Amino acid sequence: MSQTLKEKIASQLKDDLIDIEEALQTNLNPYLDLVRQTAGHILFSGGKRLRPLLMVLSARACGYSGNREIFFSIIFEYLHTATLLHDDLVDDAAIRRGQPAAHAVFGNPTAVLTGDFLLARALSIASQSGLTKVIHVIAGITENLSQGEIHQLLRKGDLSLSENEYMQVIHNKTAVLIQGACRVGALIANADTKQEAAMSDYGLYVGLAFQMIDDLLDYTAQSDVLGKKIGADIKEGKLTLPVIFALQKAKPADRAFMESVLRSKNFDENEFEAFKSLLNDYGGLDYTRQQASNYVEKAKAALAELDESPSQTLLMDVADYALARQY
Amino acid sequence: MSQTLKEKIASQLKDDLIDIEEALQTNLNPYLDLVRQTAGHILFSGGKRLRPLLMVLSARACGYSGNREIFFSIIFEYLHTATLLHDDLVDDAAIRRGQPAAHAVFGNPTAVLTGDFLLARALSIASQSGLTKVIHVIAGITENLSQGEIHQLLRKGDLSLSENEYMQVIHNKTAVLIQGACRVGALIANADTKQEAAMSDYGLYVGLAFQMIDDLLDYTAQSDVLGKKIGADIKEGKLTLPVIFALQKAKPADRAFMESVLRSKNFDENEFEAFKSLLNDYGGLDYTRQQASNYVEKAKAALAELDESPSQTLLMDVADYALARQY
Repeated sequence: MSQTLKEKIASQLKDDLIDIEEALQTNLNPYLDLVRQTAGHILFSGGKRLRPLLMVLSARACGYSGNREIFFSIIFEYLHTATLLHDDLVDDAAIRRGQPAAHAVFGNPTAVLTGDFLLARALSIASQSGLTKVIHVIAGITENLSQGEIHQLLRKGDLSLSENEYMQVIHNKTAVLIQGACRVGALIANADTKQEAAMSDYGLYVGLAFQMIDDLLDYTAQSDVLGKKIGADIKEGKLTLPVIFALQKAKPADRAFMESVLRSKNFDENEFEAFKSLLNDYGGLDYTRQQASNYVEKAKAALAELDESPSQTLLMDVADYALARQY
Repeated sequence: MSQTLKEKIASQLKDDLIDIEEALQTNLNPYLDLVRQTAGHILFSGGKRLRPLLMVLSARACGYSGNREIFFSIIFEYLHTATLLHDDLVDDAAIRRGQPAAHAVFGNPTAVLTGDFLLARALSIASQSGLTKVIHVIAGITENLSQGEIHQLLRKGDLSLSENEYMQVIHNKTAVLIQGACRVGALIANADTKQEAAMSDYGLYVGLAFQMIDDLLDYTAQSDVLGKKIGADIKEGKLTLPVIFALQKAKPADRAFMESVLRSKNFDENEFEAFKSLLNDYGGLDYTRQQASNYVEKAKAALAELDESPSQTLLMDVADYALARQY
């Protein structure tokens, strides 16, 4: 192809992205400058705006005829940023998008409270939809996100984490937000129940695939491209699907080596390379990519419920991009 | 009087308090046991349930005829508990209601995320009212609470804090939540605009008085009654009205002594007693009690907009109690 998938999506959504950036700026409205700085540190650090874009496309694909889809879409970037602020603190992550995490720059207290502020802004905007179902969806998302993150925290460093439990964690901590963005798009478009369910399914499956690829990239991407340190998941004690799968398949000696790397947080580059080779040799990388691919197919199948439209096509492209992305 | 104000209020609201406790238990619904433990640690540690009670009374005083006021009232205890979890962490408070603060027992990550969970539960219940205005009020409260707490944090240890700025902080970090509880009571009762405004004013004034007395009690109550350490505000670098007022009036030598106590966090009991004497001598305690008393009168005046009823009388009593309470 003459144009990559990413370029195609980006060019078609260029104007929407500009509008989203502007809406993110103008609706923040803190009375304290420190809140703007702290929120801005992460909010304007090069996020993909995946969640707002998916909400906008979902609304349009369901026939939304109003002009407030950009405004409502920022709910999901504010929510996402709120969770990043809290999760980076919870995980004690040092780096986010290539720069020091907000809690490291502004301190834990300000990071916690700015997260709360962003959550409140998201709700305030959501309440302007006049749809209590929108609020109900968002409240449900937030319940899941917080519990998903605690769940992950509880299982931190546990090498017996199963694939099922991994799926439950990524469902709660990532997929529900993307699912919610797509579902709320359908709700503000006043979609019928079938379309709402289709968009909800699409978002769920794209969300799962997105997180699985995210977890894969921790082992396959270059550090400078990824914007965080290589091997970060191991260092944070996060067992993800490539590792879960490979550990199951590994011969005793290889498994012992992998476990020693997972337990030691001071592995060197050679050890990490050897670890990655084993993930590859035992099929952990392929299996993860294949599972993600299956979810992308399910996401695209869900879209069949909608009439064909440019937005529906773009949603197909975004699903493919979730799989194809390099960072 | 043969019965104290507190006993009178408690006896009339006994059944409601039992119902509120039960609703707080049955609607928490976490899927993780750790979330129940962490939330429960503070949620069921002897709170007064002031906010839910005020919402229930406000709804009834505005003629609410449904049977869901107890259910909706717990929104405000969940919200309050969420902010306590985050604020105790932010302030690094060691003790809450006579026991170790949740973040000290369960760790910062779990405290942050359980706070998020409680906030989400509050919203989820609020969304069941079917009233987007209720959500809008709650979102506005949360914006104010988070910024009020950051504001306090920013001014921590600053001995030049003015009375105006103190009022702004207590407005945002305390009064808006009580104001919101009363206003939402009016909203679910489908009150007219005048009644809604009256309940909002009542809540605002009671909230301001309540916080002022709270700040006063830090200097006048016994530690074992208060449930936190004496002199906690000084140790946390919080300048409150009794101190702000006395500092303004103090002669240079006394002011210098007071400033040295405020700056040193290792003052002994004798120094603290001398500090309190100066607060008294320079009128800081009386002034604070008088200001709180003025707000209580304004709160009661706002209630004149409502028809007389047992609930209206109880709201008057609660306003008086805000002033009379010993802890």
